[in-house]
Amino acid sequence: MLFSRVAVLGVGLIGGSFALALKQAKACAHVVGAGRSAANLGLALERGVIDSIAADAVAAAHGAELVLLAAPVAQFPKLLRDVASVLGPKAVVTDGGSTKRDVVTAARAALGRKIAQFVPAHPIAGAEKSGAGAASAELYRDRRVVLTPLPENQDSTIRRVQDAWAACGARITRMDPEEHDAVLGAVSHLPHVLAYALVHELAARENGAQLFSYAAGGFRDFTRIASSHPEMWRDICIANRDRLLIELRRYGEKVNTIQKLLEAGDAAGLEKLFAEARAAREQWIHSS
Amino acid sequence: MLFSRVAVLGVGLIGGSFALALKQAKACAHVVGAGRSAANLGLALERGVIDSIAADAVAAAHGAELVLLAAPVAQFPKLLRDVASVLGPKAVVTDGGSTKRDVVTAARAALGRKIAQFVPAHPIAGAEKSGAGAASAELYRDRRVVLTPLPENQDSTIRRVQDAWAACGARITRMDPEEHDAVLGAVSHLPHVLAYALVHELAARENGAQLFSYAAGGFRDFTRIASSHPEMWRDICIANRDRLLIELRRYGEKVNTIQKLLEAGDAAGLEKLFAEARAAREQWIHSS
Repeated sequence: MLFSRVAVLGVGLIGGSFALALKQAKACAHVVGAGRSAANLGLALERGVIDSIAADAVAAAHGAELVLLAAPVAQFPKLLRDVASVLGPKAVVTDGGSTKRDVVTAARAALGRKIAQFVPAHPIAGAEKSGAGAASAELYRDRRVVLTPLPENQDSTIRRVQDAWAACGARITRMDPEEHDAVLGAVSHLPHVLAYALVHELAARENGAQLFSYAAGGFRDFTRIASSHPEMWRDICIANRDRLLIELRRYGEKVNTIQKLLEAGDAAGLEKLFAEARAAREQWIHSS
Repeated sequence: MLFSRVAVLGVGLIGGSFALALKQAKACAHVVGAGRSAANLGLALERGVIDSIAADAVAAAHGAELVLLAAPVAQFPKLLRDVASVLGPKAVVTDGGSTKRDVVTAARAALGRKIAQFVPAHPIAGAEKSGAGAASAELYRDRRVVLTPLPENQDSTIRRVQDAWAACGARITRMDPEEHDAVLGAVSHLPHVLAYALVHELAARENGAQLFSYAAGGFRDFTRIASSHPEMWRDICIANRDRLLIELRRYGEKVNTIQKLLEAGDAAGLEKLFAEARAAREQWIHSS
């Protein structure tokens, strides 16, 4: 048993799945949840995702050996201050936020000397569903979790947080927060914005309903992530907007290259680009 | 039995699935195939997709009551001339091309007065797999097939082609070729180009391998169509490039709107756009 009491602040897909996975691994005795929606917390309790509901983050974190922040990142400053007020000296804190530079900045401001107890994490797993009803003990199985440890962390603190994520079945890697935000800006934040943009562009047209009625499987998959949680993705985009703007510019240049090939009627150039993209994707799919 | 002898020119995913579906529906007695790859035709024969292999398109179309053109569209002018040279007066011709204006132009040039026997079609179904090995009798089940009939077609000719596609389990709708190319340019050709662009952009970077190693399910689905057949998509993009360029410009304007929201740090504006896109997509998913 790694932890006797775990506090999950925000019992949605990310927090709820963390709780279920730790329970399934018998890595914790009791999970206490806190969050904004009483209905969602009730559902989490009913489904056995959590064992009790705390009145607020302070009550949840009080006496916990491990605290997971799994609310939308914009709530982190307040939650971190709440946690700081009651965090015991041997407790550790981690999070499930999709951006890391802003989380580290907020944590430094809120935790003071207790910053050494916080090991930021980003589980690269998700789904377009949200809420405690979508939580699954299997969400992190064989998925990557990126830890971005801080200079203040002791090795033993990092190991304790790492053990928790490993108990969820995750593959752990480490990066610094800058590198994390650059990599995820490219492979995750950028495609989310591109998918939202396509759906919004077509839906706003006069013949939007007709257009959607001829959309098929390719469109459905391409736009799946446009069904993601708007508030969560607002926070991610704002937190990582400098990187995201860089990625959007680079992507725009590639689209511009294709536009020029089209304008020139350069069939061979288009086929070469498509074939290179396909080959790169196939190599990735078959190696992952 | 609708047809005693059906000729399929190009026995890949589209042509092979058409053959299998007609056979399963007992709508044809014999399917003869022709194509560029002897290995693929051999596989089609072995799998029972076709019943015989013809030496070329002329030999295949000779004596056929129904001819399906299912090769990459760039081969259509030559194939249509071959078909015209042997097409009997009661035979009908259809196709599986993803663009329609160029196909109609090519057909008018090649078929002469026999143009009345050609009813263009676009089955809106596909997969990133190709070849006879990927063919399935179920590919068209409950999928849309758009017919773009010509002024020269008699009703009985259109009905005969419609019956063939309906026997494959498809839902038939009609448009004119211009409308077809505009609609498909938006919901199919545009996302394919956008997906190819993203994979190509990231793969070309120095840290491309690292980037792909952190890509997850959202990226996989967003880019699934970047594994599509490069030659086929080259032809589609070239054939429909005027519409595709219009779509790319409109899409670029939407991305530009998002860039401005990001630059301004307009969190509420981003959330509104994301929420509207999500709502539009959810409505489509639940109604389709």
